[in-house]
Amino acid sequence: MKALIVVAHGSRRKQSNEEVVSLIEKIKATNIEGYDSFHASFLELATPSITDTIEACVNDGVTSIVLLPYFLNSGTHVVNDIPSIVNQAKLNYPTLDIHMTKHIGASDLMMDLILSLSENK
Amino acid sequence: MKALIVVAHGSRRKQSNEEVVSLIEKIKATNIEGYDSFHASFLELATPSITDTIEACVNDGVTSIVLLPYFLNSGTHVVNDIPSIVNQAKLNYPTLDIHMTKHIGASDLMMDLILSLSENK
Repeated sequence: MKALIVVAHGSRRKQSNEEVVSLIEKIKATNIEGYDSFHASFLELATPSITDTIEACVNDGVTSIVLLPYFLNSGTHVVNDIPSIVNQAKLNYPTLDIHMTKHIGASDLMMDLILSLSENK
Repeated sequence: MKALIVVAHGSRRKQSNEEVVSLIEKIKATNIEGYDSFHASFLELATPSITDTIEACVNDGVTSIVLLPYFLNSGTHVVNDIPSIVNQAKLNYPTLDIHMTKHIGASDLMMDLILSLSENK
């Protein structure tokens, strides 16, 4: 079983966290090939944490996890904090296949997205 | 003359700000139709500020400005802070045509971007 975990920063503002959860619901609806479950998790200020989400996945029988950092810049959260959590998970669950994708801001499609928002305004 | 201003939060980390400037350079290279100039600006922690960027545009003869909030969530920066600056600019430059696009996270293409990052991992 394979899980996709979208990792957002987390906010004190409830609505911002709910936007991430709502995004996960939309992703579920697309039924993206190769994944069995989809989860939102938060680095700080909101729950569930990344560690708790990984643990819940493992308890559910997940053997492969892809973490997608929902961040625009390659700041310390993307470069240090999330990789540290992933490395700890590798130690905790040696048979778990777990890795990170590029963060949102590094996607090749970001330019298309900006151009789309800028057009015809 | 029409200008596109991408508004990022701004970071204490120089590299994060440079990523936004680099994005603007890529946007310039696409030569997107309808725009004469492209600018990065920052809400806080980095320069140029949004207000300074708008002023520089007006001094350069720009008559129409589109602001694109480079933010993932509709937090207080997107809902209150940037609109306040836009409203002040409208008062300062009554003949200037200025408005905001949706923020990055609200783009219809965000799902495609996430699916693309998640595929084949």
